[in-house]
Amino acid sequence: MKAVAVFPKGREVKVIDVPEPRLRSPTQVRVRTLEVGVCGTDKEVVEGRHGKPPEGEEHLILGHECLGEVVEVGEQVKGLEPGDLVVPRVRRPCPSRECRACRAGAPDFCVTGEYTERGIQGAHGFAAELFVEDASYLHPVPRELREVAVLTEPLTIAEKALREVERVQARMPWRRQPGRAVVLGAGPVGLLGAMVLMRAGYQTTVYSRSPKPNPKAEMAESLGAPYISAKQHPVEKLVEERGRADVVYEAAGVASAAFEVVKALAPNGVFVFTGVTESEKAQLDEGLLMKQMVLENQVLLGTVNAAAADFEIALEDLGHFRSKWPGRVERLISARHQPEDYAEVVRGEKGTDIKDIIVFTRG
Amino acid sequence: MKAVAVFPKGREVKVIDVPEPRLRSPTQVRVRTLEVGVCGTDKEVVEGRHGKPPEGEEHLILGHECLGEVVEVGEQVKGLEPGDLVVPRVRRPCPSRECRACRAGAPDFCVTGEYTERGIQGAHGFAAELFVEDASYLHPVPRELREVAVLTEPLTIAEKALREVERVQARMPWRRQPGRAVVLGAGPVGLLGAMVLMRAGYQTTVYSRSPKPNPKAEMAESLGAPYISAKQHPVEKLVEERGRADVVYEAAGVASAAFEVVKALAPNGVFVFTGVTESEKAQLDEGLLMKQMVLENQVLLGTVNAAAADFEIALEDLGHFRSKWPGRVERLISARHQPEDYAEVVRGEKGTDIKDIIVFTRG
Repeated sequence: MKAVAVFPKGREVKVIDVPEPRLRSPTQVRVRTLEVGVCGTDKEVVEGRHGKPPEGEEHLILGHECLGEVVEVGEQVKGLEPGDLVVPRVRRPCPSRECRACRAGAPDFCVTGEYTERGIQGAHGFAAELFVEDASYLHPVPRELREVAVLTEPLTIAEKALREVERVQARMPWRRQPGRAVVLGAGPVGLLGAMVLMRAGYQTTVYSRSPKPNPKAEMAESLGAPYISAKQHPVEKLVEERGRADVVYEAAGVASAAFEVVKALAPNGVFVFTGVTESEKAQLDEGLLMKQMVLENQVLLGTVNAAAADFEIALEDLGHFRSKWPGRVERLISARHQPEDYAEVVRGEKGTDIKDIIVFTRG
Repeated sequence: MKAVAVFPKGREVKVIDVPEPRLRSPTQVRVRTLEVGVCGTDKEVVEGRHGKPPEGEEHLILGHECLGEVVEVGEQVKGLEPGDLVVPRVRRPCPSRECRACRAGAPDFCVTGEYTERGIQGAHGFAAELFVEDASYLHPVPRELREVAVLTEPLTIAEKALREVERVQARMPWRRQPGRAVVLGAGPVGLLGAMVLMRAGYQTTVYSRSPKPNPKAEMAESLGAPYISAKQHPVEKLVEERGRADVVYEAAGVASAAFEVVKALAPNGVFVFTGVTESEKAQLDEGLLMKQMVLENQVLLGTVNAAAADFEIALEDLGHFRSKWPGRVERLISARHQPEDYAEVVRGEKGTDIKDIIVFTRG
């Protein structure tokens, strides 16, 4: 069967032919891949800055954002049958007995760093015509979400982030109401984050680099979230126009821009980072940052990956988003491509405005 | 009566004569000041970097760490009588109807910034022979804590910090056990923080600038907390010797040193800042900081002031500390001075190793 893989040695991305996977245990499920999303993490993997092939192999099959259709189920699988749509989770627990997180079914908090991630870290991904997965890592998808469910995995990043924010804020001894939120970045993770925040009741602003007008700004504003360009307006202007934010949701992956926006955080606010960057030394005033954080009881929170609960909530939310903003979620998927285009898409040579998807099976 | 005040105009600190305060409401209590502690915040107030006198006045009576003895109670006061020992809280709620924090009795989370703080911000402090306070801001002190209860207020900083840490960490879905802690700084707030962390079960290391041997290092090690000098050992050495920390408790007030130690934070760890600094631009690699925080689900948390509950817990803990470490808590108070010495003590001209106390009433 056809698969898209990266060969880290030569940094090559190509379509290869690999044997079809088969069920090897009665709890497994064989899935036909319908669509795979391409994101910044894939770019890092392809560029050799993140991830690795499975032990002893020279290539890694890419793809961790996936929607598939069940084709075969093991004898002990319950609740799934051929024809069902499913979304797989990405991270698998580490083997260490010492890792309380993984042993508690929360590998998103793995402490050993020895987890695997399909399509990223030590395990093949879903960018292939078929894959096999244990039923416990598959989330059934309602048929009406067929067009958008490939967005589930990027949405889980925002779902975990907001869940964390709410739990951290619950330390304060009064009933909180959603206040103001700023989303940093207007890529898919940013726009999905804006949807999550707006649905939770936050008055949300998208603050991103590109000057207006641009398609992402139009998308944000069509959701009801004002878009302010960081290139056109410094953070002081953001605060002047929209007030300080109770939550800042970072989805831009640029450290200097992110720390600059900590200035826009309100007293008792939380700044949640989801982006990963490389070394970046900037002009941060650590003294003022620390003073502000202390005197205003502020929290900076890093979050990665997502738990099973986040996938369930994300699938539920996708349905709500479609009712709340008819036609909008579909528009986050700005282009669909063939597997042969993967290399160009991941390198941005054929990428489009928001989310690029690779189609493996039509229908 | 005698009081110690700062006159911000000339940055003068002097002993002045002011009228004795009287009860003005049936819920108030008149208290004779026994002792007042001197800390870094007092230094900032005296140097004009923080705080201000009450509206329309040219001086501010100093002192916010205090132990007193009740001399007179208003008609409606219950549970307090002349001769009782008390510790007053510092911050008073802002008047805004919009401030949910203050309206919920949690002015330590005040969002308007219009709170007052006795001895610091817009309200006279306790560095006087007598003061009057509403009974609701006074915490009764068991007689056996007479010698150490002036440490209650600085201890509340650590109590609030640990309470916040525990609540933030409760977001993780497994039963946590206290792990490793690093305390940054070996002043009174640092050493009291070490005691709180050790009593909570954390394997605690004190990491502070001064080379060994020194009196603070001896104090830390007499509690059972290894002391490592940041001047003698870089943070990599700290990690090598003691492992990465689940909690870092910052009580040094130096931003560059603090952010350097974020490197020592373990996966899922919390770094809690309690110190306030001025502008300080350093060589922080924001990119690596952000990457670490995201990939390891880490939290940086600022905390200021303390709630009524923290005073209650602090008084309880002082009793426990005395049983756990006989004679040690007393030793945190390294010298007692007269009110006339306040100016020299606060400026460090007469300061001693750990905690300097001003005695207003003997006995």
